[in-house]
Amino acid sequence: MKKIILLGSTGSIGENTLDIISRFPGKFRVVALSAWKNIDLLEKQICQFLPQIVSVADPASAAVLRDRCRNLPVEIVHGEEGAVRVASCPDGDLVVSAIVGAAGLLPTFAAIRHGKPVALANKETMVMAGELIRGEARERGVEIFPIDSEHSAIYQALAGNRREDVRKIVLTASGGPFLAYDREKKSKATPEEALRHPNWNMGKKISIDSATLMNKGLEVIEARWLFDFPVEQIEVLIHPQSIVHSMVEYQDGSVIAQMGIPDMRGPISYALNYPERLPLELPPLDLVKSGGLTFFTPDRDAFPLLGLGFEALKMGGTAPAVLNAANEEAVSAFLDRQIGFLGIEDLVRETLNSVPSGTVHDVSDVLSADSAARKVARSLIKKNL
Amino acid sequence: MKKIILLGSTGSIGENTLDIISRFPGKFRVVALSAWKNIDLLEKQICQFLPQIVSVADPASAAVLRDRCRNLPVEIVHGEEGAVRVASCPDGDLVVSAIVGAAGLLPTFAAIRHGKPVALANKETMVMAGELIRGEARERGVEIFPIDSEHSAIYQALAGNRREDVRKIVLTASGGPFLAYDREKKSKATPEEALRHPNWNMGKKISIDSATLMNKGLEVIEARWLFDFPVEQIEVLIHPQSIVHSMVEYQDGSVIAQMGIPDMRGPISYALNYPERLPLELPPLDLVKSGGLTFFTPDRDAFPLLGLGFEALKMGGTAPAVLNAANEEAVSAFLDRQIGFLGIEDLVRETLNSVPSGTVHDVSDVLSADSAARKVARSLIKKNL
Repeated sequence: MKKIILLGSTGSIGENTLDIISRFPGKFRVVALSAWKNIDLLEKQICQFLPQIVSVADPASAAVLRDRCRNLPVEIVHGEEGAVRVASCPDGDLVVSAIVGAAGLLPTFAAIRHGKPVALANKETMVMAGELIRGEARERGVEIFPIDSEHSAIYQALAGNRREDVRKIVLTASGGPFLAYDREKKSKATPEEALRHPNWNMGKKISIDSATLMNKGLEVIEARWLFDFPVEQIEVLIHPQSIVHSMVEYQDGSVIAQMGIPDMRGPISYALNYPERLPLELPPLDLVKSGGLTFFTPDRDAFPLLGLGFEALKMGGTAPAVLNAANEEAVSAFLDRQIGFLGIEDLVRETLNSVPSGTVHDVSDVLSADSAARKVARSLIKKNL
Repeated sequence: MKKIILLGSTGSIGENTLDIISRFPGKFRVVALSAWKNIDLLEKQICQFLPQIVSVADPASAAVLRDRCRNLPVEIVHGEEGAVRVASCPDGDLVVSAIVGAAGLLPTFAAIRHGKPVALANKETMVMAGELIRGEARERGVEIFPIDSEHSAIYQALAGNRREDVRKIVLTASGGPFLAYDREKKSKATPEEALRHPNWNMGKKISIDSATLMNKGLEVIEARWLFDFPVEQIEVLIHPQSIVHSMVEYQDGSVIAQMGIPDMRGPISYALNYPERLPLELPPLDLVKSGGLTFFTPDRDAFPLLGLGFEALKMGGTAPAVLNAANEEAVSAFLDRQIGFLGIEDLVRETLNSVPSGTVHDVSDVLSADSAARKVARSLIKKNL
């Protein structure tokens, strides 16, 4: 029986994680949950999974939840400190880190510091503080299992192989809904259009990141630190069908690819139960009906944010954290219709150029860079208004 | 330093094996070779690799070779007994079994009996006597590394996974040169046309088997015994580009595929050096230029020999040996223009129906079934003349 701590239980990854856990009651038990302000859903989850400790956004949410759960043996905590307490709950065997955005960094770091293996869906953690996290995990012998479908694919394609034999890691990208758009058309794209991902049903932030290919730029940074390969060994290929989730090429010329239908329960269950695979009863991949798998070199001019991902990684230090923060602000401004779709690119580029990259000694350096970048980005957005 | 015994050194797999060995002199040393009658090539190989013992077809070939190599410290033996002596050479760490056809059975069996791991290119061994070989290998804890590209792909797709988690094994087939031919066109096909494989440059026998899809039928039987999965868990998909060499589908819906350019040095080197991969410096797979990967369900009516492979496997006992022998005779008759292309199917089907399937207690049962099938097949060929 594996005891699970789930950070971000009311999000899409959180709900899918609980769906899997509920289907294998003999294998998993939930001991701790954290969420933000979706108290209604969280209450249901508490009633179903009976965790020992639960964290929410703020004292007000905590008070409401405490009242609603007064007959249950659950401790309700709140805020960043609360999320860190949940992440380091002594009874947990595995921490599923599924908080969206920079808020996931500190709890994830806390989990690793407490020697707990992490199933990581929160890519911001690795983007912002990858080197730090990698170092901490290595020092404590903590395993990080990726939940991103691409990184899970790479993990699976590396299994049973020696890392010395790897020639390159190839991340696939669907190309998003604007693969065939020219810049003119993109400049007029609305949030509604940008949210229409061709293959995956995901949250808003990540859907916009797929439309700009920033998502893939962030995943390149994530892959760099998750798997500890230099940026020169990481490549991106456009694969519109999203069936090959990613691949690893070895020095004997062999390429191992992981394929599947687009359903996050695959990567989540692999991370939850590694090295065993769960009988998920998802519809099987039908390669005959899929009609053909194609691959293209990404057009870096059409998708400059992909290139900025590589660039920030080469700059090192706090640059990836700046990139990530600028992008979060830009996407949010685009969704609020404060800037246009191409404004996302401009804003991220300008912010990355304006905020000087510093060395990362600890998490506070990363968080300062994050704040500095957001400040710059916000003032740039205001200037454009 | 791994000491290699190579059975079938002058064939295509044999030459490729020596090519790899010659490129990694610090890793491998050849201690024994066997070949048939290509004395000129064998002599060159002996001079280059300096094996202790070498076997050839018959006393006459042995005498010629002994004379030519009189200044070298090599023992020359001959015949089946000679090949068995080579296969069980005490100094060998790994036996590469690359003899074509049924002649590979006894030496391969001898290698396993002597506890030597086998890199198996000789698929007839597993087709004819798979259950026997599997039992013997399991009993002695001997590993069998497949050299067929499809089975090597499956071996690689199974690495790092638990066999309990496998849902099915999917062998890919190019479909051969006659994928788009109707029966009318196939009935007139010449050996020259049938030998023109779209993707792989191979020997004559296996090229014809690719055109009839018998090759895939035999590979299904081989996979059954190599990996010990029931026939219900083995599937075939037509994949005309021959880039995905085969795949494994797991119970979580994940499909692991091994891809590469069509070059036998990939599978050979993997088998030679498992679990490490060699830096082969082959041209890398270019998925962008490959233009798209497609998959189709095979048409069992158009390629009845594929179905006969499954059928013989379900019949069990000596049926696969009968199938294999009948096919060898049929292909040889087709290449000699004694029968037409569709005559191969008829001959194999009729032979399989005529020779009663018996139980396999030991190799002699397999060899008797082989002889009986050849006799029936030959008389059927004569009748048709």
